[in-house]
Amino acid sequence: MTVTDEASAAAGLGALHLEVQQFYARQMQLLDDGRVEEWALTFTDDGVFAANAHPEPAAGRAAITAAAARATEEFAAKGVKRRHWLGMLAVDPTGPATAVARCYALVIETPRGGQSAIRVSTLCEDRLVREGDRWLVEYRYVTRDDLV
Amino acid sequence: MTVTDEASAAAGLGALHLEVQQFYARQMQLLDDGRVEEWALTFTDDGVFAANAHPEPAAGRAAITAAAARATEEFAAKGVKRRHWLGMLAVDPTGPATAVARCYALVIETPRGGQSAIRVSTLCEDRLVREGDRWLVEYRYVTRDDLV
Amino acid sequence: MTVTDEASAAAGLGALHLEVQQFYARQMQLLDDGRVEEWALTFTDDGVFAANAHPEPAAGRAAITAAAARATEEFAAKGVKRRHWLGMLAVDPTGPATAVARCYALVIETPRGGQSAIRVSTLCEDRLVREGDRWLVEYRYVTRDDLV
Repeated sequence: MTVTDEASAAAGLGALHLEVQQFYARQMQLLDDGRVEEWALTFTDDGVFAANAHPEPAAGRAAITAAAARATEEFAAKGVKRRHWLGMLAVDPTGPATAVARCYALVIETPRGGQSAIRVSTLCEDRLVREGDRWLVEYRYVTRDDLV
Repeated sequence: MTVTDEASAAAGLGALHLEVQQFYARQMQLLDDGRVEEWALTFTDDGVFAANAHPEPAAGRAAITAAAARATEEFAAKGVKRRHWLGMLAVDPTGPATAVARCYALVIETPRGGQSAIRVSTLCEDRLVREGDRWLVEYRYVTRDDLV
Repeated sequence: MTVTDEASAAAGLGALHLEVQQFYARQMQLLDDGRVEEWALTFTDDGVFAANAHPEPAAGRAAITAAAARATEEFAAKGVKRRHWLGMLAVDPTGPATAVARCYALVIETPRGGQSAIRVSTLCEDRLVREGDRWLVEYRYVTRDDLV
């Protein structure tokens, strides 16, 4: 590659990185705010959420919505506030409108009147697709560090 | 919007996101380094720092400086190092030189010779204004998760 | 500076910030994945890793590889997963292909079957150099908050 090609490629990767970062921030805020239907819309219609902590994946938006709603109600009933932090994000394009992302994710829990703590530390691996002006998760796999 | 308009809008939002991210990193480093006057200069002259943990807001740079100085001295006297981590940032423009930002914030405390721990997990909501080439906080509201 | 100069300078700083952010994410993933030789290649050939927790710096890629390999084996033997989180990054250019970066770093440890926790909170200060299309660490100093 020429120097100009390299600069252009770096700018393209930077823009992709930044778009995914913004997407993840909004996606996690939706989940932590209990906006489970909007959360499910950040997955493709046939999107899959799989994890080494789950006996089987949630496949499709309906299943993803239902799983998030159950968790949201459970934590609300316990008076526990959850926040998902993603970080150390690496994104690689796999096509003009597809990418894979690999990042770390922490769940921070705070009981009402109590002490905040890290609930779990995980690795989050996504296959992403772009539809129009937004990214969607096609396949997510979350690996809890304590279960490896 | 055309594809070109969309790309241009995405680039503009990306640039805004990146500017606020850089602003927050430097702002938090000032606070954690005890540089309280420089910290206060990251707020507008009539800036307000409010929180569900505070009986009333600190309004204006003088009050913001005084509150930060008190906290800095208190933690120094206890031999505790504080670090503020912001993450999961979502920024939306509200005008040519104004924006709202919503992010998570953790305070990590480390006693000298002791164990680091999360002190509090919070939500941080800002109204931001740009003056010249820099962003300033006009109004900040911090919601501690344990007090909700 | 004119408004155009300012915008151009801001865009340049934003691009630099973004490049270093991407570099750090991949660098930390290499370390946490135990890919110690690739990790060492993120330092210059004569790169130095120094810390207030270490009696003396690791100087040169061979020493950096050896130190990372020892730590990797030790944690694997204990069944502990480590993840390094960097955040609150501030980057300043010091020349056309050099920069200094200052950020916070947490080490999160998770024992197999156990509870994740913050092991240490630190300040990470780097001198960076660009070689071709990538950044490298020339000198890193890590300050553990508990030892200050």
